Amino acid sequence: MDSDKKPVIGIVGGTGDLGTGIARRLTRAGYAVVIGSRTADNAHIACDALKQAAEAGGWGAIQVSSGDNHHAATAGDVVFVTVPFGAQRSTLDALVDHVSGKIVVDVTVPLVPPKVARVQLPAEGSAGQIAQDILGEGVRVVSALQNVAAAHLNSDAAIHCDVLVTGNEKSARQVVIDLLSAMGLTAYHAGLINNAAAAEALTSVLINLNKQFKTHAGIKITGLD
Amino acid sequence: MDSDKKPVIGIVGGTGDLGTGIARRLTRAGYAVVIGSRTADNAHIACDALKQAAEAGGWGAIQVSSGDNHHAATAGDVVFVTVPFGAQRSTLDALVDHVSGKIVVDVTVPLVPPKVARVQLPAEGSAGQIAQDILGEGVRVVSALQNVAAAHLNSDAAIHCDVLVTGNEKSARQVVIDLLSAMGLTAYHAGLINNAAAAEALTSVLINLNKQFKTHAGIKITGLD
Repeated sequence: MDSDKKPVIGIVGGTGDLGTGIARRLTRAGYAVVIGSRTADNAHIACDALKQAAEAGGWGAIQVSSGDNHHAATAGDVVFVTVPFGAQRSTLDALVDHVSGKIVVDVTVPLVPPKVARVQLPAEGSAGQIAQDILGEGVRVVSALQNVAAAHLNSDAAIHCDVLVTGNEKSARQVVIDLLSAMGLTAYHAGLINNAAAAEALTSVLINLNKQFKTHAGIKITGLD
Repeated sequence: MDSDKKPVIGIVGGTGDLGTGIARRLTRAGYAVVIGSRTADNAHIACDALKQAAEAGGWGAIQVSSGDNHHAATAGDVVFVTVPFGAQRSTLDALVDHVSGKIVVDVTVPLVPPKVARVQLPAEGSAGQIAQDILGEGVRVVSALQNVAAAHLNSDAAIHCDVLVTGNEKSARQVVIDLLSAMGLTAYHAGLINNAAAAEALTSVLINLNKQFKTHAGIKITGLD
């Protein structure tokens, strides 16, 4: 993609709490976002809600449209996939032909209900690795955003949670780090895609802390100065 | 153990960077520490070095002694095990009869050299789970301290790294959280022992960051207030 031009962002599963939070912050930062869902109707509803939030909040013009997941994946230069772990494989299987050569941002956390506060990583090591395995080497999978509560993304407040960004290609990680920066998040290169295991496992620990403290916990990296 | 009386701390593998850091901070906080090593001679050297540091630093009297690992495990009410992952199984196998009913603090990180910046969790899920499996249900295994650089523990400076504490028994986790607090660290209940996977995986990410930033990175939990 042209480095002077903002990439179009597709969001597969864009009607959940995380998807709407990503759409909110990226449209507000001036990115064109295409919200996808299993049914286009649901995506349209989320799209309209975002337009209303923009108008009510006086954000100025935003660029947002909607369609089914296939449409969002096809339209996006960078495609976020924000679906529950149980739907990850079927969702990615259906998209593989439409994301060739693109950056796919896997936001999946391999939680196994009902014990979501218990780390239960998959045999493959991580959901990020599963995504890379399904999509193949022709797709640049980047894993991110497992440790930021959707409630923070859906607010206008500053977010005090860093993001660990993993993926096998550094330049693809950097594109995602820049997107996250536009969303108000500090993000770091955290290694190859299987290192997604660290952020994915940490989510269950944060859920543990959320239960204890009745809050939305996150992490900040310390000691870098 | 009597709650009014400080537990004696045994440190198995107490002559490495992490073991000496734990000994330094716990003796300084008024705990009696028994430093263990594979050979008692090495433990004596570490013990003498700590006594000299205490004298040079004007800490006042400290309580520290030394012996082989078996001695440290037998003498300690709470036993820290700080050995490389490759030595974890043989070390614990040799200790199992001497730690019955005690709290064993597993500090192991399952790094697989040479690619230590790559998350490579064991098939059992975590080194913490391996320790609990080896030692059996009669030993209260608590996992902690995977994300604090030894260099920080061996300094007198304030440490800006939180500790995730996992283990199957809450009261045992609390004993360790109190010890860590005495060492100047903020520590959190992070779930059952297999949640150690989160802290263990995070170490490889922090090693990644250390390489990028030439530093000793750590984490702080945010959003709890």
